[in-house]
Amino acid sequence: MNLLLLRDEDFLPDGTARLGGRRFLHAREVLRAAGGDVLRVGLLGGRVGQGEVLQLSERELLLRVTLTEDPPPRPGIDLLLALPRPKALRKVLPAAASMGVDRIVLVNAARVEKSYFESKVFAQVEELLLQGLEQARDTRLPELLVRDRFRPFLEDELDALFPQGARLVAHPLAAGPAPRREGRALLAVGPEGGWVPFEIELLQQRGFAPFALGPRPLRVEVAVPYALGALSRPTTSP
Amino acid sequence: MNLLLLRDEDFLPDGTARLGGRRFLHAREVLRAAGGDVLRVGLLGGRVGQGEVLQLSERELLLRVTLTEDPPPRPGIDLLLALPRPKALRKVLPAAASMGVDRIVLVNAARVEKSYFESKVFAQVEELLLQGLEQARDTRLPELLVRDRFRPFLEDELDALFPQGARLVAHPLAAGPAPRREGRALLAVGPEGGWVPFEIELLQQRGFAPFALGPRPLRVEVAVPYALGALSRPTTSP
Repeated sequence: MNLLLLRDEDFLPDGTARLGGRRFLHAREVLRAAGGDVLRVGLLGGRVGQGEVLQLSERELLLRVTLTEDPPPRPGIDLLLALPRPKALRKVLPAAASMGVDRIVLVNAARVEKSYFESKVFAQVEELLLQGLEQARDTRLPELLVRDRFRPFLEDELDALFPQGARLVAHPLAAGPAPRREGRALLAVGPEGGWVPFEIELLQQRGFAPFALGPRPLRVEVAVPYALGALSRPTTSP
Repeated sequence: MNLLLLRDEDFLPDGTARLGGRRFLHAREVLRAAGGDVLRVGLLGGRVGQGEVLQLSERELLLRVTLTEDPPPRPGIDLLLALPRPKALRKVLPAAASMGVDRIVLVNAARVEKSYFESKVFAQVEELLLQGLEQARDTRLPELLVRDRFRPFLEDELDALFPQGARLVAHPLAAGPAPRREGRALLAVGPEGGWVPFEIELLQQRGFAPFALGPRPLRVEVAVPYALGALSRPTTSP
C-alpha cells in the first residue's frame, strides 16, 4: 500500500479525515506512523497529497489532509478479457488497476468455463481494484463490466462503449509484434487455450488487429502486464 | 500445463517414457487422455514433440515419444532482482521461466528484509520454474543464483557472469522509457520501495542504464512482465 485512499465519508465536518480498519492498521503496523508524521494520501476519484497525523489512537487515525496533485497519468488502455479462472482473476484485477487501465470488460468465450461466472471473486472486485490503486498511488477505479455473451457484446455494445481508438487482439499466430500506438487502445486477451477460430474471426470483423506476444503461451496475469509493457513504447520518436 | 516435461530417468530401455504422480494425474484428470491420444511433450533441457499414449493405468502413463522441434526461441534477457518477499517470489519465478528468461540473480538490497532469505519458497524453486516451462512449452530451466551481498556481487561477480549485453535498471526517476534493444540485456528490478541512492549509484557505475517503467510503482510480479514486454519490441524496423 503506497497510498492511503480516502473516501468522502471519511471526512469530518472540520475537514480532517478519520480512518479505522485496514487503513488504520496499515498506518500503525506497517508505516509505524506517529503524531506529526506525514503520509501519502489520495481521495478516491480525486487528487493525491499529504495527510498529517493529528492523532493515532488504539482504533483510529486522524489526518489533516491536503490534496495538491493529480494522480499519475493513465496509459489510455482498456481491456477486453475472456473471463479468467478465479485464481487468475484475483491477480489480474489489481494488476490492471495498478497499471492504470481505464475499463475492463470480462467476457465469455468458448474456452471459458461457465462456473467462472459464479466465482466468489466477484464479491471482492472493488477491494482487488483498490489494492491496485493503493499500489500505484492512483485514485481512479477502473470501470468493470461483465458480459456472459460474447457475440452480442461484440455486435451490439462494443461500438457504443469504445467508439474511438485502436482495437488489438493478442494472438499467437499473428504475423507482427505490437504496433506503435497512437492514442487509446482496446486490448483483447483470450482465455487459457486461446480464442477459438470463430471468436478470432468475429474480433477481426469488429476491427481488432491481431498482434503477436511471442511464441510462448503466457498465463493471463503475465500476458496482461507483458502486453501493456509492449504497448507502452513512446508515441514520440525515441 | 501446456507441455508434459520429461526427464531422462522417465525413459525405459525400449525408448518409451513412463510417468506417474503429478504429470500422470494431469494427463488423466485435465487432458482426459486415453490410449492413442497424442500429447505435447518435451525433454527437460532438450527438444519438444509428441507423446502417443500407449497405456494409461490407474497409476501411470506410458508414452511413445517423438521429439522433433526446438523449444520456443528465447528473448535474450537475464534478471537481476532484489529478492522479493516470499509471496511475490512465488509468482515471479514461474512468470520469468514462462517468458524465457535465461538467468535470474536474486540479490540482497537495503530494502530487502533479511527474513526473505530464509523463505520456504527456496525449497520449491525448481517446481516453480518448471511450472513456468510447462505453461510456455519450454524445456530449458533458467539458472538461478542467490546472492546475499549486493556490493560484492556487483563488484566481483557481475562482469564474469554477464560479460556481454546491455545492462538496464528500471527506475522511476529515469528520464526515458525502455531503450530499443539490440542483443542480450540484463534487467535490474528493485525491491518494494525501490533501490536506495547508494544502490542506484553503484548500478550506474557498473554500467546499468536507468530507464522508466512509467510513474506508477508496480508490484514486482507485475513490473517484471511489464518490463519484458517493453523490452520486447523488435530490433528490426517495424
